[in-house]
Amino acid sequence: MTVLILTCEEDVTADMVVLRLDEAGVPVVRLDPADLTGGVALSVEYGVRGVSRGHLAVAGRLVSMDGLRSVWVRRPGVAASRAAQPSAWLTEESAQALYGMLRGTGARWMNHPDAARRARHKPWQLRLAQLCGLPVPPTLITTFPQAARDFAERFPDLVVKAVSGAHPQNPPRAVPTSRVAPGTDFTAVTFGPTLFQRRIDKRADIRLTAVGDRLMAARKEVAADADPDHVDVRFAPSLAPWLPVDVPPRMATAVHTYLREAELAYGAFDFAEDADGIWWFLECNQSGQFGFVELDTGQPIALAIAQWLAYEGTSAGNGSEPSMG
Amino acid sequence: MTVLILTCEEDVTADMVVLRLDEAGVPVVRLDPADLTGGVALSVEYGVRGVSRGHLAVAGRLVSMDGLRSVWVRRPGVAASRAAQPSAWLTEESAQALYGMLRGTGARWMNHPDAARRARHKPWQLRLAQLCGLPVPPTLITTFPQAARDFAERFPDLVVKAVSGAHPQNPPRAVPTSRVAPGTDFTAVTFGPTLFQRRIDKRADIRLTAVGDRLMAARKEVAADADPDHVDVRFAPSLAPWLPVDVPPRMATAVHTYLREAELAYGAFDFAEDADGIWWFLECNQSGQFGFVELDTGQPIALAIAQWLAYEGTSAGNGSEPSMG
Repeated sequence: MTVLILTCEEDVTADMVVLRLDEAGVPVVRLDPADLTGGVALSVEYGVRGVSRGHLAVAGRLVSMDGLRSVWVRRPGVAASRAAQPSAWLTEESAQALYGMLRGTGARWMNHPDAARRARHKPWQLRLAQLCGLPVPPTLITTFPQAARDFAERFPDLVVKAVSGAHPQNPPRAVPTSRVAPGTDFTAVTFGPTLFQRRIDKRADIRLTAVGDRLMAARKEVAADADPDHVDVRFAPSLAPWLPVDVPPRMATAVHTYLREAELAYGAFDFAEDADGIWWFLECNQSGQFGFVELDTGQPIALAIAQWLAYEGTSAGNGSEPSMG
Repeated sequence: MTVLILTCEEDVTADMVVLRLDEAGVPVVRLDPADLTGGVALSVEYGVRGVSRGHLAVAGRLVSMDGLRSVWVRRPGVAASRAAQPSAWLTEESAQALYGMLRGTGARWMNHPDAARRARHKPWQLRLAQLCGLPVPPTLITTFPQAARDFAERFPDLVVKAVSGAHPQNPPRAVPTSRVAPGTDFTAVTFGPTLFQRRIDKRADIRLTAVGDRLMAARKEVAADADPDHVDVRFAPSLAPWLPVDVPPRMATAVHTYLREAELAYGAFDFAEDADGIWWFLECNQSGQFGFVELDTGQPIALAIAQWLAYEGTSAGNGSEPSMG
């Protein structure tokens, strides 16, 4: 039974997991959908009596769809984007053929494309986090200047961040979370929905990596003399390392609920820890990087992923396994 | 409790449903996401204790998210595409804000965006139809010329059709299903996944419209002297009208299963009826037009949709109602 990894060639994080799978003697096929229809070929037949058979050919290897145990959707390229004559039409046809075939298998997904797509919606994340009992900082998304002014009056210390995540440039550009200056004029929100959030006066950033049922949390302390305008850990200058930290039982329960409801087998949660030790939910990135955490903390994240992918059973962890896939 | 219809202005099919809702005295708000952030404004707050409050302003009317009973996703424009300064970024931010807010409500969806997106995948449809017990013509999707040749040998009378549906031009162009000529050279399938299907020697086309639990089928007879090369009912010249026809009980059961598994509240199924009276599944369009069927048959489809949208309960028909939306 083979593990299929959908990712691009230069993905060194995937290399870490492939290494673990190789050590365990688990067959792995790595495929970039961008290589359809050059280096990758496929065929699937839907028979009249409910039988479907399919196979993929990658670099001279033939993989039967019956023989897939799991699919890891890491950083797949755009389908057929490296074809001799790429086009939006060829991309659409190739993506439907490939993912349609894979959806029809009984393989376990990390993460299933439907769950992954839904999980990218920030407002949806906030609402789900609330429902699961995770502390969510008061948040407003609005195009009404007056609503923004009222919110700023109730919560004078605010940050502003993107509703949707990364700016769709090529390559996409992360939009840093920034502090809202006192006395800001909110008139411009009429031009586009804007997300305001009460700033958490944080003493640490928390990164919690979930792999199936396994939770591994890391903590990076904020220096006592840190500039409070450096809100976004991705852009803040810091020499403090990520250190392993225990997950409080209540948080573990809430995170497991989140993953189950979201049908995610993998998630990278970001929290801000305040002076009372409360972990405030900021976001859950269903494809978040983990290499930097593993390097700092020594937490065996790649190994946990390899074990999840290699598992032969049908109900390990929060595997997203709808009846149809 | 208000019905929200997401569609463009020139949608006359939506007008038919709005008329029925007006007659029943049900409040309706019609909104085109393209009008964000000009004619449409929104605001939603996620509170610290799991409370979320939101409202929309459309043409001077304020709609509370608590007061939404259902959302009909008909033909919505691209979010913020009519803004003063449209951009991919503004579209993404606006779509996430709007749909994120709506996902957080308890409203029933026809159809839920997640279910709708999944339901567009043709290979997924074929596999689900098989699993539900609908007869599916033998189908091959392949980039292997030899697989195509073998298939053509087993099923000499084939059609070829798009894997993904409409060609992404502006406006998108339907790709007609066509007959494969005998002796066709299949070498070119290496350049792009190609879908072949055994041609059904049909004596009628069947259009089955499902609205919640209600199924309304219509039948259009193929003339005895019709050209067998006119495979695609959308492009075939025909004067025969659509006439109402009963749904065989076994088909009704299978269709209900399909809708439940697909989490669809609305679906337009296309079947080809062969000489033995078997209805062969061709596709299920989750946003298929119904005006032409209603005109020919007099079947009250618009009324059924209005009733589904107006229903105040929580479990009518195949309403797509995941706990989180």
